Amino acid sequence: MSEYIEHDQSGISVGIVEKQVCTFAEPPHEMILECGEKLGPISISYETYGKLNQDKSNVILVCHALSGDSHVAGYYSKDDPKPGWWDIMVGPEKGIDTDKYFVICSNILGSCMGSTGPCSYNPKTVEPYGLDFPVVTIGDIVSAQKALLDHLGINKILAVIGGSIGGMQVLEWCLRYPDMVVSAIPLATTMKHSALAIAFNEVARQAIMADPNWNNGNYYAGPKPDLGLAVARMIGHITYLSDESMRIKFGRRLQDKSDLSFNFDADFQVESYLRYQGAKFVDRFDANSFLFITKAADYYDLEKQHGSGSAVKAFAKAKARFLIVSFTSDWLYPTYQSKEMVTAMKKNGLDVSFCEIEAEWGHDAFLLPSERLFTLVKSFLESVYKENRKQPNALRS
Amino acid sequence: MSEYIEHDQSGISVGIVEKQVCTFAEPPHEMILECGEKLGPISISYETYGKLNQDKSNVILVCHALSGDSHVAGYYSKDDPKPGWWDIMVGPEKGIDTDKYFVICSNILGSCMGSTGPCSYNPKTVEPYGLDFPVVTIGDIVSAQKALLDHLGINKILAVIGGSIGGMQVLEWCLRYPDMVVSAIPLATTMKHSALAIAFNEVARQAIMADPNWNNGNYYAGPKPDLGLAVARMIGHITYLSDESMRIKFGRRLQDKSDLSFNFDADFQVESYLRYQGAKFVDRFDANSFLFITKAADYYDLEKQHGSGSAVKAFAKAKARFLIVSFTSDWLYPTYQSKEMVTAMKKNGLDVSFCEIEAEWGHDAFLLPSERLFTLVKSFLESVYKENRKQPNALRS
Repeated sequence: MSEYIEHDQSGISVGIVEKQVCTFAEPPHEMILECGEKLGPISISYETYGKLNQDKSNVILVCHALSGDSHVAGYYSKDDPKPGWWDIMVGPEKGIDTDKYFVICSNILGSCMGSTGPCSYNPKTVEPYGLDFPVVTIGDIVSAQKALLDHLGINKILAVIGGSIGGMQVLEWCLRYPDMVVSAIPLATTMKHSALAIAFNEVARQAIMADPNWNNGNYYAGPKPDLGLAVARMIGHITYLSDESMRIKFGRRLQDKSDLSFNFDADFQVESYLRYQGAKFVDRFDANSFLFITKAADYYDLEKQHGSGSAVKAFAKAKARFLIVSFTSDWLYPTYQSKEMVTAMKKNGLDVSFCEIEAEWGHDAFLLPSERLFTLVKSFLESVYKENRKQPNALRS
Repeated sequence: MSEYIEHDQSGISVGIVEKQVCTFAEPPHEMILECGEKLGPISISYETYGKLNQDKSNVILVCHALSGDSHVAGYYSKDDPKPGWWDIMVGPEKGIDTDKYFVICSNILGSCMGSTGPCSYNPKTVEPYGLDFPVVTIGDIVSAQKALLDHLGINKILAVIGGSIGGMQVLEWCLRYPDMVVSAIPLATTMKHSALAIAFNEVARQAIMADPNWNNGNYYAGPKPDLGLAVARMIGHITYLSDESMRIKFGRRLQDKSDLSFNFDADFQVESYLRYQGAKFVDRFDANSFLFITKAADYYDLEKQHGSGSAVKAFAKAKARFLIVSFTSDWLYPTYQSKEMVTAMKKNGLDVSFCEIEAEWGHDAFLLPSERLFTLVKSFLESVYKENRKQPNALRS
């Protein structure tokens, strides 16, 4: 299997950053989850970039997607081979300018990148939670982020931004804590998973649960369900690309061979790419976290949870100014789903800008270099920042 | 898991039919495959419907897709709960009228429904072949069908018809045996798999090969890789549907529950549907056959194999009259891929009709009741039949 070249990082990075962890909601102050269960204590790992200004009016909260972490930009050390996952967007003079804004990114509840999740120790059993971890929701994930902001003494967010499952968190922030959010940028996201999106997640979960090493979630002392998790990741990777991007990136090109193998090796580059992505993923991600986070995404239904089934009713709560972005070739969360949000927001008189970016890279497009996205985000944030400095209490009441 | 209601079968069925098996290519007359290996003896199971006319000019060959079999229509007995897989199309007065035509359908080489495949006994070892079965191609599959037709004394096909991988066989017939094929109806198919189609097949294969029961293909004496095969089938099922059809069929409707389970049961109907389809499939299909047939489909490249990379050059060999049908919501073999065929055929002066049918059911649409498809096929066949009776040697020379 060959290594694939990552997209070049451009511009100046924020430099060396440090992951921090805050622990809160200690017993008896446990967090009460949407399922009704209590969870605590909870650790949330996070990173910050730039400086918080005096009136704490320059906070930008970045929400990550399924397999992301708090390390959105910069390097952990001089020898770190690659920067954070959105280094192309977050940094000095970048789309999210760390010379101007104070950027916070935390690892989501249920993940395995420093925040409490199924691989964390259950204080009641002193064993990893495994499937005893409660099924958390996007609402719970956002509540935990709110607790982190409380801990940091921040009560207003200039902008909350994120793509995919990160975009669901952005939407949830605007409805759960409308008085805290000045503006919001949901990218390549949806108010609720379609049957197609649920189907892909379900098959990925079935691939994990079919692996005998998964062992009903109790594998932390033994071999991990690597093969199942790799298949799950491969399924995900297909949905992140598009017919067009795969044609450009791979076509029917053969992998290191002059002809077909006539066996079950990876003949085509696309096969090799998927195998590589699957194998790489198991080194850094926990199979149970994959189950819990995809379940949270499938459960998310903004209309049902905030508007008794109506998006228009749901957004009646919102006060933020919105920039919504979709991508032409994203078939996981197609543009029509963004347009449904826009319609519901407009019916509530909200200030909403919408842009569908022409991009062949499928759902992944929001993470890739795009001058258009860069400019859109930068100018939207500048506009919100200026407006907010003029009228610091400009939130719709 | 609940049973899903199959689409109603309409019209009169052909009635009771019988599966037959012919064995040929006995040593030393083994079949030489495209990979260079020899295979034999080979059994091909087949069924016929209607009567062969005196001048043997009413033969219609139906080619099945991945998991199909020779049982295209009718019932095996009075108590048989369901008819053949395309009973809506094949029968008296139907799209393929068995009162008029002599219909042949055989199980493809490499399958597990009566024809020789990886679960058959290897005469050299008196064990099932497993992975010792050679990687057969669409060309090999068609060669085996040709041997069956030789055995039946048939040297002209009025029409060869099939969808998906069956459509690849249709195309291959027209290039491999151009003098035998009067007309051809490739449905919902492609001249070569896109990277996206290969990707789905590869992930499905990985799911099978990740199952420890697969045991490198040697599982016939022990437990079968049912969990891996079920996941593979679920992946397939997603690609057979469409965003739209899944929205109509399932949406976010819950399965037998008033609310979310907050565990990893099947909450949504779409999850239950996929689990059911996966579980049902393992009872009737062989995991190794799934590997071999998907590989044959991925390897198929009409342009490369017949035209040194050019579809126009490839179709220079063809003499048949064509009816090509694609479906709007088929994202596995999208319409643009059918249009590429049409263009190449037209550049060769071939008589080709093309129709894109508006259908929300995705790739599966070719198997579902469609008045439009029914009428198209019926009138095309009537026209070809009449023309051929007038000019029995009307093949372009």
